[in-house]
Amino acid sequence: MYTTAKMIFQSEGEFVRWLRTLTSAKSPKIRTGIGDDAAVVRVGSDRDLILTADLSIEGVHFTTRLHPARSIGHRALARSLSDIAAMGGVPRFALISVAFSRSASRAWIEEFYGGILDLAARFSVDVIGGDTSIVRRTIMIDVVLAGEVARGRGLLRSGARAGDVIFVSGSLGQSARGLEVLKSQARGRKRALKNQQDNSEATRAVRSHLYPEPRCELGGWLRRGGIPSAMMDISDGLSSDLIRLCEASGVGAKVDAWRIPGPAGVQPKRSLELALNGGEDYELLFTVPKRKMTKLPRSHRGVPLRCIGQVCRSQDVLLVHEDGECSALAAAGYDHFSK
Amino acid sequence: MYTTAKMIFQSEGEFVRWLRTLTSAKSPKIRTGIGDDAAVVRVGSDRDLILTADLSIEGVHFTTRLHPARSIGHRALARSLSDIAAMGGVPRFALISVAFSRSASRAWIEEFYGGILDLAARFSVDVIGGDTSIVRRTIMIDVVLAGEVARGRGLLRSGARAGDVIFVSGSLGQSARGLEVLKSQARGRKRALKNQQDNSEATRAVRSHLYPEPRCELGGWLRRGGIPSAMMDISDGLSSDLIRLCEASGVGAKVDAWRIPGPAGVQPKRSLELALNGGEDYELLFTVPKRKMTKLPRSHRGVPLRCIGQVCRSQDVLLVHEDGECSALAAAGYDHFSK
Repeated sequence: MYTTAKMIFQSEGEFVRWLRTLTSAKSPKIRTGIGDDAAVVRVGSDRDLILTADLSIEGVHFTTRLHPARSIGHRALARSLSDIAAMGGVPRFALISVAFSRSASRAWIEEFYGGILDLAARFSVDVIGGDTSIVRRTIMIDVVLAGEVARGRGLLRSGARAGDVIFVSGSLGQSARGLEVLKSQARGRKRALKNQQDNSEATRAVRSHLYPEPRCELGGWLRRGGIPSAMMDISDGLSSDLIRLCEASGVGAKVDAWRIPGPAGVQPKRSLELALNGGEDYELLFTVPKRKMTKLPRSHRGVPLRCIGQVCRSQDVLLVHEDGECSALAAAGYDHFSK
Repeated sequence: MYTTAKMIFQSEGEFVRWLRTLTSAKSPKIRTGIGDDAAVVRVGSDRDLILTADLSIEGVHFTTRLHPARSIGHRALARSLSDIAAMGGVPRFALISVAFSRSASRAWIEEFYGGILDLAARFSVDVIGGDTSIVRRTIMIDVVLAGEVARGRGLLRSGARAGDVIFVSGSLGQSARGLEVLKSQARGRKRALKNQQDNSEATRAVRSHLYPEPRCELGGWLRRGGIPSAMMDISDGLSSDLIRLCEASGVGAKVDAWRIPGPAGVQPKRSLELALNGGEDYELLFTVPKRKMTKLPRSHRGVPLRCIGQVCRSQDVLLVHEDGECSALAAAGYDHFSK
């Protein structure tokens, strides 16, 4: 690991030393971190190990024009944290592999790692390794996160049963709305910045996009309470992700359009569209057996938990509109095939 | 994980299903593999977990002109297997993240995964996850491998002590020699192919380059025998890697040039140069306390174990030539800073 590094550091050794000072292993579970062939860590004997990998690629997941380096680092790690949250697990160790572009400055790299390490520290995650290289263009990041969960207790997508109630945490479509605002700011920077001061909704959406908050605490709390029958995170958009959960569980769903918590400050139709297909919200989607509904508060530590529909025996996934009309929900969230 | 996939598959779901049929989890240690938010696995309670990440990037680690897709897959996993071997561990689970180029064919992708999965099967490694995306150019692969080692017994680079004897497994410089042959074949394909038939050394070198053999069995055997004081794999070249081992251990070394096993079929000077600086050999470099020398055979399961020098108290790393002259060994193995 870290067999290669960056031109703007005098040598590979300098880069590894620099990174080591930033990440200096704190956890007694780390036997050896950055600097050897591999990292050696300890996981609890009554625990299962959770492993997840997430790519973040320039031009696909971010652009250096719209996203500050700190946000790129934050978002790259947040994607993986959200996957661990979706299993109800506790994140522990991260490996960060990055192909930097030749043109990256030292300040950019420091901000990038700053974004990763600040978020990692907040979730008590130790960065223990990874790899780096240099490419002519197209920055690419792969974050691998190892977490733990009590033996046999990780929450899967496949546990939803007919009659279960469908919940989402927080608000949806905020990240997509934030990206819209960022893009319009980039087009007409001055005017937009002025408007933005009058528009705390837009500011909040931009913040959700640049610095999403993974729901690890909530996921762990739901799992320990034995509440959800199935859970996943909403990374590509509610429409695509709900269909995946239903497929994995062999069930269908009916979702009430008016219950889906979309972004404020936009037309209702657009708000629903953003909430269904926006993606990158990193909220939790989970199903709860009716008998366990009493265990579930309306919010947990300030994060709203909203019922949006019900799991059905039929394998159709339907959207119920306020006028009572039903339409099939189409998977229109982010898909790299179609972009 | 696997939230994205390839245009040439009809949908992301199709890609994940295809990959799942290839990798269908066999080990009872896998609770859930590809298809959920994260993989959940079990590791032994008396074990430490080893984690390593290795990037393989088009134009840096391979080219599609010289390397068949199968070799690209094989080499990407071999790099990580070699890191686990260097700790004396047993590889268990792999996460494969790939950014494919838009122009990749389905046949190319199948061969690529074929190279990974055949090697994984030989080492009883389960591919349990990863991520994929599409990029315009520059294929990039990140392999993360999780392995196990008995608690507190992983072999580090930092254990070498003055007086220890320095060993390498197998032959060095073979991979770099193989790359030379491949390049010359690409330049004058016909003539080279004819010559190659007469030249089994060249064929062997090409094979070492395209399909390196990680030394997991040897690494585990050395560790269980309690033989090495320090160990690492030779991935960037003996010169660079020996200097790293010495730095980590706070010692120096004297290496006898004539004992270094370089490739045959080239001038002796060139052979030494390839052996010292070639890189990508994935052989093991280890140090052995003198009192344990009797435990070490001349070869293990057909892999030669050769003494090449001695660890010194002074922190200089010296190359001793046959005429008795000494020169400082320069770290001239692969370094992404200087390329």
